[in-house]
Amino acid sequence: MQSSAPVSVIHTDITATLSNCALFRGLSDSQRTDLMQQASIVHAAKGKTLYVHQEEASSFYIVSQGWIKLFRETLDGNEAVIDILNDGHIFGETSMFGNGSYSSSAQAVEDTTLIRLPISSLRQIIEAEPKVALNLLDSMSRFRQQQERELEHRSLQNAPQRIGCFLLRLCGTEMPDEVTLHLPYDKTLLAARLGMKPETFSRALAKLRSETGISINGAAIHISNVRHLVEYSCSACSQSFPCEDAGC
Amino acid sequence: MQSSAPVSVIHTDITATLSNCALFRGLSDSQRTDLMQQASIVHAAKGKTLYVHQEEASSFYIVSQGWIKLFRETLDGNEAVIDILNDGHIFGETSMFGNGSYSSSAQAVEDTTLIRLPISSLRQIIEAEPKVALNLLDSMSRFRQQQERELEHRSLQNAPQRIGCFLLRLCGTEMPDEVTLHLPYDKTLLAARLGMKPETFSRALAKLRSETGISINGAAIHISNVRHLVEYSCSACSQSFPCEDAGC
Repeated sequence: MQSSAPVSVIHTDITATLSNCALFRGLSDSQRTDLMQQASIVHAAKGKTLYVHQEEASSFYIVSQGWIKLFRETLDGNEAVIDILNDGHIFGETSMFGNGSYSSSAQAVEDTTLIRLPISSLRQIIEAEPKVALNLLDSMSRFRQQQERELEHRSLQNAPQRIGCFLLRLCGTEMPDEVTLHLPYDKTLLAARLGMKPETFSRALAKLRSETGISINGAAIHISNVRHLVEYSCSACSQSFPCEDAGC
Repeated sequence: MQSSAPVSVIHTDITATLSNCALFRGLSDSQRTDLMQQASIVHAAKGKTLYVHQEEASSFYIVSQGWIKLFRETLDGNEAVIDILNDGHIFGETSMFGNGSYSSSAQAVEDTTLIRLPISSLRQIIEAEPKVALNLLDSMSRFRQQQERELEHRSLQNAPQRIGCFLLRLCGTEMPDEVTLHLPYDKTLLAARLGMKPETFSRALAKLRSETGISINGAAIHISNVRHLVEYSCSACSQSFPCEDAGC
C-alpha cells in the first residue's frame, strides 16, 4: 500500500529511517541518495501480511514505526513465531542469499510504517561498498548470538526463568533497584515469542510472581526487587546481567 | 598443538581443506597462497578445549577431520550444546564482529584435525575481496535459517519428532524406502545437541520406536518405512522433506 502523505513527509521519513539504520553506516551522500530514490513507504494495517514463507523475494524492509511478526506455519497448522521486531529493525534482507525466497512470513502486529527497498539494490550496494557488507556481517553476527542465547535458554531455562529474562531485557543495560515495565505486545503473542503455549505461559507467569514478588496489572509489570529477579533467571544463563545485547 | 607431520603432508592437508571451503571460493591463486602461509594444522585430542566462551579471539578454525562441540556453560553449572560440527565446517569466525570475543566454547568430541587461521587474516581478505564477504554472508544466512528451523522445532515438535527429524536429516536429499543409519556421536551428546536431558531422550527414542517401527542396535538405526517417519516428524515442521539444508 503506497502512502498518501505529502511528498516532503515521505522524504523526511525515509531520510530519517535510512540515516538511523546501522546497515547503511559509512555510505557516501551520493550512495545514500541513490538508495533513497529506490525506497518507498509502506503503511501496513494491523494483521496485514507483507510476504509469506518460501515466496520469491523482491523486497526487504526496515521498520519505521510499529511491530512486525516473523513466523512460519507447520504442515499441521501450528504457528512458530521466529521474531517480533520494532523500530529500526531490518527484515527480509537475508533472502538475497540461498534460493532467493523468504525464510519466514511477515505480518504487521499493529498498524506499522515501513520502508521498502528492492533486494537488487542491496546486492548492488554490497558489491560496490565493502563497508555495507561488513555492516551486514556485523548485524548477522549479532543476530546469530541472540539466536544461540535463545537456543541455550530453550534447553536450560524453565518457563518462569524465560519470562523473567524477557522482562530483564526490557530494563536495558542498567540495573535499577525496582522498575515498572510495560509489555510491548499482548500476552498471547508474547507466549508465542517465547515458544510457549498460552496455558504454559499463564502458569509460568503465576509461578514467577510467587517466586520473585513481581506484580502484574494488565500490561504493567512492577519488579520491586530487580536483583532478586536477576538471581532467579540469570543463574540458568551463560551470560551475566545486564546482557551485552540487551536494551530498551 | 603444532603438527609433527612432514611439511609436504601439512601442505597437502591445508591446500585440500582451504580449496574445499566455500568461504574462500573465488579467491585468486595469489590470495589463496597468502592465506595458506598464515594457516597451521592443529591436532586436538578428544576432550581438548580450543577456546572458552567470552575469551578474546585471535583465531578461527576449519574442521579438516573429526567432530567439534560448540557449547556454553551457565552460572549454575549446566552446559548448553550450541552445535556439533564435522569436516569442512568453520567456527570462531564470527568473533571478528562485536566485541571480538568467542560466543561459545569449542572442544574436540574425538581426536580432530583442524586448520587454524588468524582472525586478522579474515578481516584483511574480506576488506580486499568482496567475494569473500558475500561467501561469508551466504554461509551466515544459511546458518541463520538452520537456527530459525531449530527454534521452530523447539516450539512445536515434541521430543520424539525432533529425534525423527535428526535421523531424517542424516538421510540426505533423497527419500529411500528404507535405510540403516549410524549415529555420528554418542547418545548423551546427541541428547544435549537436541536440547534434551538424557532421560527425556531415552523416553522419546522409545516412543519414536513404538510409533514408527524403527529398530535400534547400538549406534545403528534401521528405518524400515522412511515415508512413515516423514509423516510422523515433518507434519510439525514448516518445511517438507527432504529439507533444503539436509545432507549426509
